[in-house]
Amino acid sequence: MPRASRPGEFALIEQYFRPLAAGASALSLGDDAALLSPRAGEDLVLTTDTIAAGVHFFPDDPPESIARKALRVNLSDLAAKGAAPVGYLMALALPADWTEPWMRRFCASLADDQRTYGIGLIGGDTIRASGGLTITITAIGSVPKGAMVKRSGARPGDIIFVSGAIGDSALGLRLRRGDIAGKGQRARFLLGRYLHPEPRTALAPVLRRYASAAMDVSDGLVGDLAHICEVSGVGAEVRGDRVPLSDAARAMVTASSVGLGDLLNGGEDFEILATVPPADGRRFAAAAKRAGVAVTGIGRVTVGKGPPKVRDADGRPIAVGTSHAHF
Amino acid sequence: MPRASRPGEFALIEQYFRPLAAGASALSLGDDAALLSPRAGEDLVLTTDTIAAGVHFFPDDPPESIARKALRVNLSDLAAKGAAPVGYLMALALPADWTEPWMRRFCASLADDQRTYGIGLIGGDTIRASGGLTITITAIGSVPKGAMVKRSGARPGDIIFVSGAIGDSALGLRLRRGDIAGKGQRARFLLGRYLHPEPRTALAPVLRRYASAAMDVSDGLVGDLAHICEVSGVGAEVRGDRVPLSDAARAMVTASSVGLGDLLNGGEDFEILATVPPADGRRFAAAAKRAGVAVTGIGRVTVGKGPPKVRDADGRPIAVGTSHAHF
Repeated sequence: MPRASRPGEFALIEQYFRPLAAGASALSLGDDAALLSPRAGEDLVLTTDTIAAGVHFFPDDPPESIARKALRVNLSDLAAKGAAPVGYLMALALPADWTEPWMRRFCASLADDQRTYGIGLIGGDTIRASGGLTITITAIGSVPKGAMVKRSGARPGDIIFVSGAIGDSALGLRLRRGDIAGKGQRARFLLGRYLHPEPRTALAPVLRRYASAAMDVSDGLVGDLAHICEVSGVGAEVRGDRVPLSDAARAMVTASSVGLGDLLNGGEDFEILATVPPADGRRFAAAAKRAGVAVTGIGRVTVGKGPPKVRDADGRPIAVGTSHAHF
Repeated sequence: MPRASRPGEFALIEQYFRPLAAGASALSLGDDAALLSPRAGEDLVLTTDTIAAGVHFFPDDPPESIARKALRVNLSDLAAKGAAPVGYLMALALPADWTEPWMRRFCASLADDQRTYGIGLIGGDTIRASGGLTITITAIGSVPKGAMVKRSGARPGDIIFVSGAIGDSALGLRLRRGDIAGKGQRARFLLGRYLHPEPRTALAPVLRRYASAAMDVSDGLVGDLAHICEVSGVGAEVRGDRVPLSDAARAMVTASSVGLGDLLNGGEDFEILATVPPADGRRFAAAAKRAGVAVTGIGRVTVGKGPPKVRDADGRPIAVGTSHAHF
């Protein structure tokens, strides 16, 4: 499509982004800035994540999937902090060859997710990309004053929990790249888990109530746990065999060259890693279940420092892959 | 410098970004998210702007200048809304060939500006760029509840004011590109105005007190005024000959092929465009002067709709260049 036939930035805002605008804070995107009027007793939680073509997604991924990933990786951070989504600003660097059909699908997918997660677009910026498509979303969430769940509150004896299942996304990426072979329902499931992170938004109030520390697993389970340990000044012991795997991941570990240790730092799981005081462990798991999110106890916070120790049922160390980070 | 000898994302945060972290909201950047605890009676103003190599700056611009531009274009938006800077999140897409000396200079410049404008880094993300360096900053400002200056409040009869001088940056860019020739002190001044926007932060409280509408001039004076008119449902008449030009710009208009009409939509001025009820015009100008910012009345808001009418002292229309937008 020739460049000249497409809308410029203002027409793009008018046509595609204004329908995504949320209530008064967005001022219908007709202003330079968004306005947030915090309620009394409310703290705001802010997070920013960039995803780029060729780094975090494939340029030919469906626009719906790219939109979901861009928004959801941020919603995952908010959930881990116990925050309810409020609004987001989106900075788009668009390559020269963007098309209107692509943009329609991208925005329709954002609109769907806005409804699902109760969040709206409140501002943004659109520029011409010097490289591939790059999307930076800054998401704002809300917690009762003082209730944000930090990384720094883990204490020796706390139980280490993780939501959902670990490793699906790393396997999905390997399938997508052709590093490993797979087809059928299981492969589709793993590819879907890579393409479409599911932020554990429903877990946010449960984390606020019970968790001493939490974060989302984006770079890899063990590497991310190491961050909690470092900031909290504690150590950790993880039972690698207790880390929850989906049936598809378990089958793939059996059938391929990918081992459990690789999945433990596979990255992009977008599950929640939380530490919970031992007395609250059962109540936390029950409340999470009621919220529709399975959580699994995988270890304990320990006295001391250093990276988490990962062992199997017989106490033998499990070699864990290098923490996956796109940078 | 070989890739392997440089720090990864976490070391980069530790070494370069943590020293920029501001107070408690940043949690020393050791968490997934920033925490803002708004005071009672406070509204928050949020804006996001991306600048990219080859689009908004030259890849070989000094890192100090790139840092300033990235932060200041956002501070300019906050100032136009009457907001005091609070904090910012920075998403960096770094090309593969970044070096530590470059990063040191980039961060030292941010630190300088943080002191100048009273703002601190509260969060961010760093990724590998798929193209050139791209910096997205989301800045947060504070206004008393209900006091944000919007674009939508201009009323017929209001005086149209602009701060500083218009067109310097557009001329600086043309000099930088070699589109026009120039050297000596005047050329250096214009190049400096292109490289280093000066957000009119000191004007923020004056705008809150007197302005019916305001925005910063980023895409071009007349085009940006058209946005105020559209959102406010009014028209505007501008006396082109009254638009303030620096001595350097005036000399350049005389000596080069660039006309006044080009400067009126040159873009990247990062001055403040404001409308003020006629009864407050003198008080606004006096208060701005006390705040250290010159403002000039350039026209009137009128009844009716449509793009601003720009005329010279004899009432003849001045042809204005197309509004400059990088997109």
